[in-house]
Amino acid sequence: MSKTKIDMNADLGESFGHYTIGDDASLLDVVTSANVACGFHGGDHTVMAQTFKIAREKNVSVGAHPGYPDLWGFGRRIIPFSAKEIETLVAYQIGAAQALARYSGHKITYVKTHGALGNLSEKDENVAKAVIRAIEGVDPTLALVSGAVGVLGERARERGLTVFSEIFADRAYTEEGLLVSRAEPGAVLHDVELIADRVIRMVKAGAIETVSGAMLPTAMDTICVHGDNAESLAVARTVKNRLQEAGIAVEAFL
Amino acid sequence: MSKTKIDMNADLGESFGHYTIGDDASLLDVVTSANVACGFHGGDHTVMAQTFKIAREKNVSVGAHPGYPDLWGFGRRIIPFSAKEIETLVAYQIGAAQALARYSGHKITYVKTHGALGNLSEKDENVAKAVIRAIEGVDPTLALVSGAVGVLGERARERGLTVFSEIFADRAYTEEGLLVSRAEPGAVLHDVELIADRVIRMVKAGAIETVSGAMLPTAMDTICVHGDNAESLAVARTVKNRLQEAGIAVEAFL
Amino acid sequence: MSKTKIDMNADLGESFGHYTIGDDASLLDVVTSANVACGFHGGDHTVMAQTFKIAREKNVSVGAHPGYPDLWGFGRRIIPFSAKEIETLVAYQIGAAQALARYSGHKITYVKTHGALGNLSEKDENVAKAVIRAIEGVDPTLALVSGAVGVLGERARERGLTVFSEIFADRAYTEEGLLVSRAEPGAVLHDVELIADRVIRMVKAGAIETVSGAMLPTAMDTICVHGDNAESLAVARTVKNRLQEAGIAVEAFL
Amino acid sequence: MSKTKIDMNADLGESFGHYTIGDDASLLDVVTSANVACGFHGGDHTVMAQTFKIAREKNVSVGAHPGYPDLWGFGRRIIPFSAKEIETLVAYQIGAAQALARYSGHKITYVKTHGALGNLSEKDENVAKAVIRAIEGVDPTLALVSGAVGVLGERARERGLTVFSEIFADRAYTEEGLLVSRAEPGAVLHDVELIADRVIRMVKAGAIETVSGAMLPTAMDTICVHGDNAESLAVARTVKNRLQEAGIAVEAFL
Repeated sequence: MSKTKIDMNADLGESFGHYTIGDDASLLDVVTSANVACGFHGGDHTVMAQTFKIAREKNVSVGAHPGYPDLWGFGRRIIPFSAKEIETLVAYQIGAAQALARYSGHKITYVKTHGALGNLSEKDENVAKAVIRAIEGVDPTLALVSGAVGVLGERARERGLTVFSEIFADRAYTEEGLLVSRAEPGAVLHDVELIADRVIRMVKAGAIETVSGAMLPTAMDTICVHGDNAESLAVARTVKNRLQEAGIAVEAFL
Repeated sequence: MSKTKIDMNADLGESFGHYTIGDDASLLDVVTSANVACGFHGGDHTVMAQTFKIAREKNVSVGAHPGYPDLWGFGRRIIPFSAKEIETLVAYQIGAAQALARYSGHKITYVKTHGALGNLSEKDENVAKAVIRAIEGVDPTLALVSGAVGVLGERARERGLTVFSEIFADRAYTEEGLLVSRAEPGAVLHDVELIADRVIRMVKAGAIETVSGAMLPTAMDTICVHGDNAESLAVARTVKNRLQEAGIAVEAFL
Repeated sequence: MSKTKIDMNADLGESFGHYTIGDDASLLDVVTSANVACGFHGGDHTVMAQTFKIAREKNVSVGAHPGYPDLWGFGRRIIPFSAKEIETLVAYQIGAAQALARYSGHKITYVKTHGALGNLSEKDENVAKAVIRAIEGVDPTLALVSGAVGVLGERARERGLTVFSEIFADRAYTEEGLLVSRAEPGAVLHDVELIADRVIRMVKAGAIETVSGAMLPTAMDTICVHGDNAESLAVARTVKNRLQEAGIAVEAFL
Repeated sequence: MSKTKIDMNADLGESFGHYTIGDDASLLDVVTSANVACGFHGGDHTVMAQTFKIAREKNVSVGAHPGYPDLWGFGRRIIPFSAKEIETLVAYQIGAAQALARYSGHKITYVKTHGALGNLSEKDENVAKAVIRAIEGVDPTLALVSGAVGVLGERARERGLTVFSEIFADRAYTEEGLLVSRAEPGAVLHDVELIADRVIRMVKAGAIETVSGAMLPTAMDTICVHGDNAESLAVARTVKNRLQEAGIAVEAFL
């Protein structure tokens, strides 16, 4: 099931006060969906409003990107909240993002969990359900972006939520279709051309390419790219160009 | 214009993690509207969800109660944000409250600014406008609770927002109808019977009673009470009883 | 080896801004050593200075009580810091406590880790070593208070630190001499007389009493009590009275 | 009183978790004294330990650089603390810096207040006294770095503290010798050659050059430079080279 179009998403709006992270302005010229940090692992009220405003001007779709309340750890550490507490902290952040998007003339259409919360929700049944209940409790019309493989997307589909599956442009996949841990060698790919070639192969095949080269057919609605540094921005731009050259339109899923 | 009914409101949901402030459960049996802290000056995602849930069960109306991001100072200090930054931090908090209210089966119907932000918005034209723009940007159907006298209510009415005026049960008023500063002697009243008598006089007259005994006619939709300690809870209960004995129904304004 | 004297310690100075936890004033009349929170899991610069001042006036010894930077969780959750990061966060807090003690005319003589950090340092070799290296790096003349059984005390003694062993007045012990997890039934004792009787038995025997009634001989320099509520304060007072009646002096270990 | 040697200082260690600010490594090759942020307006335990370690390796003197607890505002906003509260928050930060410096094999020799706290302490008698009392309470052997003109240095000298006066390389001075507010045009100088020329004139004359070109004789022990961006780093390097070419040694004051 070769695709004729696909979305590209990235994490944005992660700056905080005088602290700047990422080249948001450049990345918003590449991606079609922006996962906007909600002030817990990164971002703040001012950065959020500004990010939604620029996204609207550049016609980029926006989603809430809730994470652990862990600015120091940038949301990349598991903070031991109960499933019930995760429900409320995700609900809180979705609401803040909805309000600031509206305030900026834009509209949140989806939710994607960040960092350690994202990883855990793909593996832990209770955390997955907590994220889903938060969305259902706040606004069940919101879509969910999840990994192509994992319990979060499975449970969300069972509950009737709209789910979009993402693949990572620069991350290696296990034979099960999960991300190779960052602690493993080769977990993150760096060569721009190899990354772009692999993305094209995956999108054309509608399948995840594992480290062994096996292709696992899967849903695939969006490609996650990064903009932390010059290299990652180059990857994002190259992937987009190569997709378009291959006749695959890069469009927001919503 | 003697009133036949009036609302009673209080600040609630100000506990944080393991730190408890106020006797929320008792106060929710007295008031008809609860101003729920939004996690900046007090409160957190879990406390908010719980407070909205109990308020729903007890049929108490709920409003967002945004304040400065100053947990240490409990929102009682002016943190020097620009008007633009105040817009976004108020919008953020309104959204978080809306989401957790929905999540808890309840619905935010109004906004009341907290502490130092509340006081400043009654006096500073730019801050008042910032609060109003935040409400308009997020949800213009939300009402605003403001002081009976002050620029916040004036500007909000000009903009077409629904405004409810509040009087304080236990605070002395200047001849202009503003609160006597807490730094002044006699700013806070403590005698339960004197407080209740004064409230009844004010509500019957539809007028604020100043320290000189003058009565300033004003809009008057809700009475603010507190629940920090046994004394303040007794005040709240006595005021409610005395209002009902005087034939004035205590009902939520919304 | 029946003891003729013993110290009593408690966690103090855990209030934060307008949020009050514990009845510090009363507890400082009972204990001989105060473990003072350092602003990470609880406490703040003002509370710390005040606590050190009152401890000095009441002739109570003081120690730094470092915890995870987790005000919301009150330091009772494991926040996943590396051992190296734990070294620096413990060193930071020791220094802050030393400075505010000096500022208040008092002097820190020991370190006791708080909550989840305390529990982990008794079980995890690397965390124990990190705490020890922090003390050595900042001031190796500081003593360490540790559980009677556990790797923290063992490693610290090997390194030549002065170590004081504590037993808990109101916590049940496993057959290995470790605390029964709070998740287990009976982990926390509540009956004042039973608690006091058990403490006297343990101090007289110089041994920990396990849930089966076995007595494990161990070093025993201080008894940890609490002051969160009226019940725990009564326990602390009763234990002290009973010790003194039994001819065991209650004195600071330093 | 032309000088034969002078110190150069800069604010360092202001990164936080995953958020990086400033090119510390490069700046530590230029300056002779590093004002190290203490975790309130910037910096954290890990960054502090690392900064002290590198400073030691590069033979750079270090001082505590306390600021308001305002990470979002980077310490550049006046947070309304009482003088008493400022005493304790400065004492806390000095202690944390002393401990982490010792832990890293280095030693704090001075204190310099940051940002809004620094500006206020130069103008407000009570804040100046609070900073001085914090130093006296924690360690009166610590020196103080203050503006060449202002109440902080005056009061500190009266109290017998060692005071070093600083001039800013890139800031315009009023006729009274105070910094022109950043809100005024021309407050910050940008031309590298003009800045270097002016510094040389000031150091040779032992006098502050005001916007009118007047020279105000003053104590002058250190020159403050910045390292936020490529331009400011070029200024720092050029100033150092020009001083050395002019036969003025660049050496730490302590």
